[in-house]
Amino acid sequence: MDYQRFDSLFHPSSIAMVGASPNPANSFMLNIILKYGFRGKIYPVNSSGSEVLGLKAYTSVKEIPDTVDYAYLQVPAKATVQVIQDCAAKKVKLATIFTAGFGESGIEGGSALEHEVMNTAIKGGVRLLGPNCMGFYYPIAQLTYAYEFPRESGPVGVLCQSGGNSMQLVRAAAYRGIRFSKVVSYGNAADINESDLLEYFAEDPETKVIIAYIEGVREGKQFSDILRATAMVKPVIVLKGGRNEGGAVAALSHTGSLAGSVKVWESLLKQANTLQVHSIDECVDVALALLFMRPPASRNAAIIGLGGGAAVLAADDCYDAGLALPPLPEKTKHELKKITREAGKIFKNPIDLSDMYSFPDQVAHSIKVVGGWKGADLLITHFGLEVGPTIIGLKKVVPLAEAVLGAVKEVGKPTAMVVYAAYSDDASQGFLKVQRMCAEAGLPFYPSVPRAISAIGKVMNYYKRSL
Amino acid sequence: MDYQRFDSLFHPSSIAMVGASPNPANSFMLNIILKYGFRGKIYPVNSSGSEVLGLKAYTSVKEIPDTVDYAYLQVPAKATVQVIQDCAAKKVKLATIFTAGFGESGIEGGSALEHEVMNTAIKGGVRLLGPNCMGFYYPIAQLTYAYEFPRESGPVGVLCQSGGNSMQLVRAAAYRGIRFSKVVSYGNAADINESDLLEYFAEDPETKVIIAYIEGVREGKQFSDILRATAMVKPVIVLKGGRNEGGAVAALSHTGSLAGSVKVWESLLKQANTLQVHSIDECVDVALALLFMRPPASRNAAIIGLGGGAAVLAADDCYDAGLALPPLPEKTKHELKKITREAGKIFKNPIDLSDMYSFPDQVAHSIKVVGGWKGADLLITHFGLEVGPTIIGLKKVVPLAEAVLGAVKEVGKPTAMVVYAAYSDDASQGFLKVQRMCAEAGLPFYPSVPRAISAIGKVMNYYKRSL
Repeated sequence: MDYQRFDSLFHPSSIAMVGASPNPANSFMLNIILKYGFRGKIYPVNSSGSEVLGLKAYTSVKEIPDTVDYAYLQVPAKATVQVIQDCAAKKVKLATIFTAGFGESGIEGGSALEHEVMNTAIKGGVRLLGPNCMGFYYPIAQLTYAYEFPRESGPVGVLCQSGGNSMQLVRAAAYRGIRFSKVVSYGNAADINESDLLEYFAEDPETKVIIAYIEGVREGKQFSDILRATAMVKPVIVLKGGRNEGGAVAALSHTGSLAGSVKVWESLLKQANTLQVHSIDECVDVALALLFMRPPASRNAAIIGLGGGAAVLAADDCYDAGLALPPLPEKTKHELKKITREAGKIFKNPIDLSDMYSFPDQVAHSIKVVGGWKGADLLITHFGLEVGPTIIGLKKVVPLAEAVLGAVKEVGKPTAMVVYAAYSDDASQGFLKVQRMCAEAGLPFYPSVPRAISAIGKVMNYYKRSL
Repeated sequence: MDYQRFDSLFHPSSIAMVGASPNPANSFMLNIILKYGFRGKIYPVNSSGSEVLGLKAYTSVKEIPDTVDYAYLQVPAKATVQVIQDCAAKKVKLATIFTAGFGESGIEGGSALEHEVMNTAIKGGVRLLGPNCMGFYYPIAQLTYAYEFPRESGPVGVLCQSGGNSMQLVRAAAYRGIRFSKVVSYGNAADINESDLLEYFAEDPETKVIIAYIEGVREGKQFSDILRATAMVKPVIVLKGGRNEGGAVAALSHTGSLAGSVKVWESLLKQANTLQVHSIDECVDVALALLFMRPPASRNAAIIGLGGGAAVLAADDCYDAGLALPPLPEKTKHELKKITREAGKIFKNPIDLSDMYSFPDQVAHSIKVVGGWKGADLLITHFGLEVGPTIIGLKKVVPLAEAVLGAVKEVGKPTAMVVYAAYSDDASQGFLKVQRMCAEAGLPFYPSVPRAISAIGKVMNYYKRSL
């Protein structure tokens, strides 16, 4: 791959928005790009040449009195071939075809049309994203395809065959503090495909961790080689859509993908040392453990939280995930007893501080004591918001979270912060606030102990295999 | 078991709140009971005889100039024996010991004290809940132990060895529409234990479904017999705390429970035809599928939702859980095509309506068409709130949810409603609102497709084994 050349596709200085018209249904993507603040030039193109959102429009890409680097096509499927021909004439480098109704659809002639548009692009020297995709999100180039995507850049590169999944992923991750280098929604992959993007992200210096949602690949051997090579240089989190017969039917209709054999995929993802996950939320859980936590020196964990029953279940989950909970030494127990009385608490490992919601200082002090114990290389803190006689709402949770965050920062060990059981409006607001606080502090936040532990377990297995 | 006699324990007409004093830390449970509106008489008891929250107090249970049915003890562990003696003299039927620091604790003499208080109670004819527990929540008797527990009664009976887990369970369930007959937090089980409560709930006409959180049992053979007998008459959902070595250590320190062998428990729970779960949220997921969904006639499901990538993953999850997705017949496809154009959607099974958030009528119509198809006996509807270019917040989600609920009600098939991907404040508010709407409509609401499908799968396995 010519990295520089491929990378230049994502750095347009001018964009043609083909199909953007005064009708709001056809100008929403233009609006998104304008609001995000793209600093290059934007030229709407529509059949009547009507001005859109204050921008002068043209009736064809060819008529634009300027160079055009990138074209975004929101036109009927049948019109795409002509537009790509115009793009070729205009020496457009990259075109995204947002439009669906090609090879993935049951529509007559859809596959033939996809081939035609692909061949037109190849012949004309235009690289193609899609059809049936959202395009790319690249904060550094001030380009996005959805409202409320973060403006700041970050270390995660994403290739995502589903536009919807990509948007869920960016939002789920953003609220927990993750930022992205580039997110590419590539749909039917008529031209630019999973292998191109993996190869690109492997080399891309802005990308430290790769997340891939893939429904199917066209050239298995090539993909397999590139996946192995990529996973040697950067962690690759893979969510395979259509991983069994059920999803495979859907994948064919969604992006025209042949999902491939379950067994072949399982063994490829394992052999290539990828981090395999099964949901969008799990992509985020695992990325957080990779990015916001130094590799723990061992599987010895300490669990410290509020709630005895929760402590019992957390310990069960830890054991299931292959983490160990070494016994707390007498010295540490003794120090804890100086902070708070023992009745109703557990001074073993897990450590249960019971209902000490109103005593943030004592909670923080206890975390520091446990954090100072050399027997544990990993800390899991947890507290529930609706597990006591009183609901812990926004007001009460903030000083507690501040104290816990402060203590965790001071301890400096790899730590997962868990806040769970937010059911009411008030507790939900508190939950979102603590999530934000953790995101800002660069701490990995999880909504349940099993999710935290499962992610950490996967990441530790990955580190072990990578040695 | 003498059902009537045991049942009478939960119908006190007068309560002594022992340890309730003007200090807010010692009057919070009295406050909870007052606010919930217990209609019987309440007598605070404290060493100084000081009035508490407007109620005249006594210095001893014996001094109360009235019969006392129930005593709630929030006094230091060492004072409990004397209080129980007083209760015996006063012919109190049931005493809850909230206090911790007995057999579960590392405190010297804790186990001996627990034995002493138990023997004192037995000798004096007082039944004991706890120590180290919250007591019981029984809406019909207007008795509770936590703020914001529902006032209405319902069909779920709970025995829970952890007070915190019981409060999380009631809240998680309540927001999704589940109501309770009685919830008993029984802590260390010095007297009333898991076997007594299971036997009681088996006979209790107010209870249709039982949820049990158990950390350990004292008499294995008796418990095993009672569990089998109970599960023959009512569904029993069991969450075992301390299900492996990790949790077992914690269980011993939490409620003084010997967690027992993993293998023995696994085989008992299976042989007894219980519904085994692994978290509090899963208790609720499974209870919802039992209560809010008629048993589906087959494992043939139809998935209909908004979002193609989500459809692919939902189909994968369905297949994993043993549900089948039969192909949509041509006739149904044809009807769908009359409602909305095909491009960008999937008219197979799963059915993907893509981004039709702004067209609730068409979504409802499509659900009715798919619901009318006789090939599926189970419907799963899903939509994400942050999977498109625009976040679907409170305002936009309500008409959509209303349309979906209306269609689902009209179809009348067993249906799970899934709403997922609520990360922002606005989407979270929408999420909570739809949850409430489903709770009020008596529809099972789930925050993810895997959680819905896993619960339905467990319930269908249960029905099959129960035939």
